[in-house]
Amino acid sequence: MFGHVMEDLTPEEIAAASQLYAPLADRVRELVAATVLTEVPAPDVAKAIQLIEEATALLGTKAVEGSFGVRWTPDGKRRTWGNAIVGLRNPIAPPLDIRQRGDLTYADVVIGPQYEGPPTLVHGGIIAAMLDQVLGDAAVNAGVPGMTGTLRIRYNRGTPLGPIRVQSAVDRVEGVKTFVSGQVIVDDAVTVEAEGIFILPKAVRDLGDNPPPGILAPGD
Amino acid sequence: MFGHVMEDLTPEEIAAASQLYAPLADRVRELVAATVLTEVPAPDVAKAIQLIEEATALLGTKAVEGSFGVRWTPDGKRRTWGNAIVGLRNPIAPPLDIRQRGDLTYADVVIGPQYEGPPTLVHGGIIAAMLDQVLGDAAVNAGVPGMTGTLRIRYNRGTPLGPIRVQSAVDRVEGVKTFVSGQVIVDDAVTVEAEGIFILPKAVRDLGDNPPPGILAPGD
Repeated sequence: MFGHVMEDLTPEEIAAASQLYAPLADRVRELVAATVLTEVPAPDVAKAIQLIEEATALLGTKAVEGSFGVRWTPDGKRRTWGNAIVGLRNPIAPPLDIRQRGDLTYADVVIGPQYEGPPTLVHGGIIAAMLDQVLGDAAVNAGVPGMTGTLRIRYNRGTPLGPIRVQSAVDRVEGVKTFVSGQVIVDDAVTVEAEGIFILPKAVRDLGDNPPPGILAPGD
Repeated sequence: MFGHVMEDLTPEEIAAASQLYAPLADRVRELVAATVLTEVPAPDVAKAIQLIEEATALLGTKAVEGSFGVRWTPDGKRRTWGNAIVGLRNPIAPPLDIRQRGDLTYADVVIGPQYEGPPTLVHGGIIAAMLDQVLGDAAVNAGVPGMTGTLRIRYNRGTPLGPIRVQSAVDRVEGVKTFVSGQVIVDDAVTVEAEGIFILPKAVRDLGDNPPPGILAPGD
């Protein structure tokens, strides 16, 4: 499939790449927040722009064309490091560090000022984005990965910026459809509820009973 | 309401602030994309981090506490410049430049590699986020601004990274509920459909028949 990239890397090489690019994305996340909040005068903005342009040019001297895609190793280890919600090298992503405990798929994350919608609250769309990812990961964790078919979100009340939990669990599987529900939780209270249906892609169905290693396992 | 900030600025001062901070956010957007795609070796990453940390420190020398909030002028002009989807000074935001033509509310935008989910496709969650905003703006444009109550998204097929249109229109208003539908369009084909119900906040209902100027008008 286009955008899926096979790379023959050792675990050590993957760890080294993570240790190289994850801190870079973290520093850009801090810059993003500072850009939203800054009130410095024009000369300081001009100087900051100069520094940022220099960093961008430097990073661009060797770069992937198009988009990062999803990377695989021959033993089936998947890396979604460019993903907009979970990508460890994507400064747009909070990033969600999605974990699994029993049937529960969840992420604990602190939501910064760059994700604001209504004043002091997390943007409802960003909440939808995180739920889409965490519900989808529940399907992956259950061995039935799918593209989002439908997603329904019910906002009970505003979700303040700061620490939140996003969680999900598979309710049932019917043929190619996996039904998943989830919640956003703040201080033990549910602020948002979601239901999603995820569709097993034809490309995966066509793999039959002997999929390549890792295709049905969680990535990172 | 907390996070709503009144500022007595002239139109010229607002234009100057936009011209100062919007280009900064644009440069950070370019850096975000470069961070996702870069393959430069460790010494270059270290140098880029140094430049980025310097820029962040400089921008932090004078900054808003907490979050940007929503800013108002006494004549009722609203600025949502920190918003995660439309904020002109928020590098997380594409940003959507949401316009109105007749009953249609829409944004034409080019989606870059930092919004990727499945390889080469826009993250389904990011699509949900943009739809939440554009559907909500249709309610605002119809004079019935609301918090998202429910949002339902149907993904017909993947939406490729690149130029897309996100559009919406109000279907009907029932009491405090505004029913809005919308679509994502790529090359004249609908890739995603959405329906939302937006709830007129009690704070606005309490304003009665004489709301302050601008409270029911689109911001920017």
